[in-house]
Amino acid sequence: MLRYFTAGESHGPCLTAILEGFPAGFAVDVAALNHDLWRRQQGYGRGGRMAIEKDEAILKSGVRFGETLGSPITLVIENRDWKNWQKKMSADPADRDPDLAVTRPRPGHADLAGVLKYHHADVRNVLERASARETTARVAVGSFTKQLLAPFGIRVMAWVAEIGGIAADHSRLTPAEVFERAEHSAVRIADPAAEERIIAAIDQSKERGDTLGGVVEVVATGLPPGLGSHAHYDRKLDGRLGGALLSLQSAKGVEVGLGFRMARLPGSQVHDEIFFDGEKKEFVRRSNRCTRSTSARRTRPWPRSSARTCAPFRPRP
Amino acid sequence: MLRYFTAGESHGPCLTAILEGFPAGFAVDVAALNHDLWRRQQGYGRGGRMAIEKDEAILKSGVRFGETLGSPITLVIENRDWKNWQKKMSADPADRDPDLAVTRPRPGHADLAGVLKYHHADVRNVLERASARETTARVAVGSFTKQLLAPFGIRVMAWVAEIGGIAADHSRLTPAEVFERAEHSAVRIADPAAEERIIAAIDQSKERGDTLGGVVEVVATGLPPGLGSHAHYDRKLDGRLGGALLSLQSAKGVEVGLGFRMARLPGSQVHDEIFFDGEKKEFVRRSNRCTRSTSARRTRPWPRSSARTCAPFRPRP
Amino acid sequence: MLRYFTAGESHGPCLTAILEGFPAGFAVDVAALNHDLWRRQQGYGRGGRMAIEKDEAILKSGVRFGETLGSPITLVIENRDWKNWQKKMSADPADRDPDLAVTRPRPGHADLAGVLKYHHADVRNVLERASARETTARVAVGSFTKQLLAPFGIRVMAWVAEIGGIAADHSRLTPAEVFERAEHSAVRIADPAAEERIIAAIDQSKERGDTLGGVVEVVATGLPPGLGSHAHYDRKLDGRLGGALLSLQSAKGVEVGLGFRMARLPGSQVHDEIFFDGEKKEFVRRSNRCTRSTSARRTRPWPRSSARTCAPFRPRP
Amino acid sequence: MLRYFTAGESHGPCLTAILEGFPAGFAVDVAALNHDLWRRQQGYGRGGRMAIEKDEAILKSGVRFGETLGSPITLVIENRDWKNWQKKMSADPADRDPDLAVTRPRPGHADLAGVLKYHHADVRNVLERASARETTARVAVGSFTKQLLAPFGIRVMAWVAEIGGIAADHSRLTPAEVFERAEHSAVRIADPAAEERIIAAIDQSKERGDTLGGVVEVVATGLPPGLGSHAHYDRKLDGRLGGALLSLQSAKGVEVGLGFRMARLPGSQVHDEIFFDGEKKEFVRRSNRCTRSTSARRTRPWPRSSARTCAPFRPRP
Repeated sequence: MLRYFTAGESHGPCLTAILEGFPAGFAVDVAALNHDLWRRQQGYGRGGRMAIEKDEAILKSGVRFGETLGSPITLVIENRDWKNWQKKMSADPADRDPDLAVTRPRPGHADLAGVLKYHHADVRNVLERASARETTARVAVGSFTKQLLAPFGIRVMAWVAEIGGIAADHSRLTPAEVFERAEHSAVRIADPAAEERIIAAIDQSKERGDTLGGVVEVVATGLPPGLGSHAHYDRKLDGRLGGALLSLQSAKGVEVGLGFRMARLPGSQVHDEIFFDGEKKEFVRRSNRCTRSTSARRTRPWPRSSARTCAPFRPRP
Repeated sequence: MLRYFTAGESHGPCLTAILEGFPAGFAVDVAALNHDLWRRQQGYGRGGRMAIEKDEAILKSGVRFGETLGSPITLVIENRDWKNWQKKMSADPADRDPDLAVTRPRPGHADLAGVLKYHHADVRNVLERASARETTARVAVGSFTKQLLAPFGIRVMAWVAEIGGIAADHSRLTPAEVFERAEHSAVRIADPAAEERIIAAIDQSKERGDTLGGVVEVVATGLPPGLGSHAHYDRKLDGRLGGALLSLQSAKGVEVGLGFRMARLPGSQVHDEIFFDGEKKEFVRRSNRCTRSTSARRTRPWPRSSARTCAPFRPRP
Repeated sequence: MLRYFTAGESHGPCLTAILEGFPAGFAVDVAALNHDLWRRQQGYGRGGRMAIEKDEAILKSGVRFGETLGSPITLVIENRDWKNWQKKMSADPADRDPDLAVTRPRPGHADLAGVLKYHHADVRNVLERASARETTARVAVGSFTKQLLAPFGIRVMAWVAEIGGIAADHSRLTPAEVFERAEHSAVRIADPAAEERIIAAIDQSKERGDTLGGVVEVVATGLPPGLGSHAHYDRKLDGRLGGALLSLQSAKGVEVGLGFRMARLPGSQVHDEIFFDGEKKEFVRRSNRCTRSTSARRTRPWPRSSARTCAPFRPRP
Repeated sequence: MLRYFTAGESHGPCLTAILEGFPAGFAVDVAALNHDLWRRQQGYGRGGRMAIEKDEAILKSGVRFGETLGSPITLVIENRDWKNWQKKMSADPADRDPDLAVTRPRPGHADLAGVLKYHHADVRNVLERASARETTARVAVGSFTKQLLAPFGIRVMAWVAEIGGIAADHSRLTPAEVFERAEHSAVRIADPAAEERIIAAIDQSKERGDTLGGVVEVVATGLPPGLGSHAHYDRKLDGRLGGALLSLQSAKGVEVGLGFRMARLPGSQVHDEIFFDGEKKEFVRRSNRCTRSTSARRTRPWPRSSARTCAPFRPRP
């Protein structure tokens, strides 16, 4: 069982993750992890902070000579701006300064809920942890975990499917092609026409002092049938993925396969019929509309399971 | 911490749930629980099985003289059709009959994934547990849990929002009103015009041998601000609710608040502005589009958080 | 991951266990399980209840035609005396009878702690669950789990090492021999001379209206090296075994290997030196004083890890 | 629910703990935590390493201006000797040097089990994490947790009860007195005569190149009745304490109350009779032999629950 904790305030000295249960003897690629951290910081119209922080993970335990030991892996990402926050985010009671207190809770954040729940007088005591910067530690953990799956032929990819209501048309591409093209796009989208319109929309939104939302697609290929289980509610794959995705800051929806469109289509257009290929002696499907039935996913030419997250994309003035 | 396990095959002798961690000294209402079980079995166009089973929970532990003891609560729901399945679902090796084996996996179910994962030769070994009947045990557990919340003024309600693409218009009603009306509808929907069209659509779908999907809304009122937490990813309320809802058989999507619509709207139309009512000395919001910001939910006249699940509604020929 | 819950009051209708995560396709032996339940009820000088109850487990889920399905296994052990307790232990509020209340907490039990913690006016509300009868459900779960280990050559055995301060001398026997002899002893002890003295001590104790304590040894043979882990505190085998054994009613101590004797011996007499057998190409040890170092256990002729539990043995007048 | 992970190799850059679930708004005392770390390093005859390391915890998250935020607390203890181990314990594959490999597993450690389990060629890959230095992170976590209990009048104390078979006689002292005296002893024992003999035994043992073992007593005072629960096996206090204590490196036994002595005494001398003080209107006990029955512990003049751990005390040549 893999487990992980994340810790760290947005303007604290660093973010820390402990990843426990990672197998021993695995050659981890720290450069690939740092590439994933770099990737998290890209995006047209991002806030100024992204320019300040060039995240890099430092390994403090669990890896020796490039290989995992089987012991807990500590990943530390230092906050480069810490020198400007040492006093304001100090752990030392002597540095307390009531004048610093943030007293105006922002909507769309955990600010108000947090101060009411934890009895804080300073909204900063909430916003520092509720910040999207916390996901940096999750990206680091996820990067090593993706590396662990790679030798099994499993690949996890994600890209932007739409921003501000402008959706990509990449329906004729394979997941690997979509991913490849999106990686070279300023808004991580595989459709140049959509990209152009999105950039214009972001610019306009910025001018108005407003923000846009978006949809991200996550696709895993090469998965064996039977991940998760039908046997108990807390082992079900859809539930676990859905729980993980909705735990992301600002995510307000998750779909698996066709998602909500399934609710509007007749069953005959929703399910993926199962055929048996007598020659190859394997089950095949000619559609992939419903991840619930992607058990035989490996037998399809371009397996594809998609979970969509509605993550508001927020350019700031 | 409340924990529960569910067990039982669809055509086995019974379903069993153990609910552990329930507080002591609480007067449980078994009639209300049985009403919830009855409710689960209603719905226009349901399969023949619903007529056979009249579910009732039997308490086997954890309750004495109507009050909880603090010890694990065992809830048993007997399968009334068991007498016809005793041989086919027998635990006894002497009853094995290979001729009974189901060998044709159905799409849209865990059948194929299950037999590949667990190396079963008989699809029944999967479908019996993957069945939606398993949710009966969850309804029983959920019923007692709802009762536990009631003295705090918390109410959890659910209804059908749409079936087969035909959506209810209940935007001018309070959650309590929607719930009340939906409870008296054959398709649990609070809009008589939509109900009529849905019933016609179900009839037509049945004739064609097809099925329809739908969307369910879950609303909790009276919640205190700060349930869940921003402090760690696995304590976040959205994530936990999303994980629970997507663990339901046939659920393929979850939305919180405006959900995917948020991804298409500018931030200015998505967030719920926070005001301070100087007279009442409390925070107020004049919208509730974003459950993430419903921290101050208690201060609104008709608080409402909605998670939508896309659960195909399946009339059978 | 195997998980289980137990439920049930001592004089309730039944005990229930749900064993979740058990692999599919395993042929379980219900007769062997029932033999383990029978075994739990034996012992010279046991109370009258043991004669009333002849425990037998009924499978309510998770097993079909003698083989596990991969779904949760429900084990039910009915209380044969239930007909005499239906009113006194009724779940129905109408049966409440304040005159039945037990108001005198017994020392050496959870009675007083339980009524204070759970605000019960009737000690029975605690003692029914705190009862040693709860271990029946654990024996049932443990029996299937032992069966799962058997094909790997792993055997888990237990016997009485001492009662009332009278210890067995079985130092020249192998674990399998000790087990075999103990199984045929009225007090489950492998030393006939000790057995005779123990029976006399039990008789005398009974006459005086007093009770005796004892020590049980648990030995597992055939284990592979490396069970548990040094990598994180909650994966350590000694900790997990110790936690399980001390969760047993009336257990007040656990030792691994030489246990407390190790604290009194010099290190040179405590550790098990590691040798390398160049011919067989394997590590060997010539002693087994310290389970912490039984990593290479499989290489010894008679591997032996012992955890001792101090479980007062209570004949009642 | 409080949770924590520990991470870090003995000669790595640092030890890290993440303590998750700690309440917000609590004023933590870092000096007291550092005193506990200092305390861990004391003891007559300790190895040379203790002189090198002067452990101090650095707070990297979860605390601001001396108060907890409710977010995960990161505690880092740097290894002062790291500069001498940078190459030997480097995470960088370029630093790999097969000549450094430790190939001789030590008895009494996880060395052999670890290399067999994790397929390591270098014993150092195990011993670095199996090291008792890991407990430093647990001491740090435990120190904050003790601080959290203090305002409730709960005090957790520990001292040495015996070393090398030489036991302290402190039976006429209160726990607080024993603790106070032990804190001023070179071997943390409250009996000067025993101390003198122990120091001599340590010196002799060192000369012979041997080691001694010992017994530690842990006492908590001021606890409310009903901690833990009789309701489910994994909530029982004895089981949880026993599991925690036996997860400590080198611990081979745990006793609660009189422990194994209970197994040798008649029930009449083991249980703590419960009396009711009609004047004070409270339950009282006149003995405390059996922690299982210390539910009413608060009512005794000198409440005392003791768990004994057999922890070999190892002076090294």
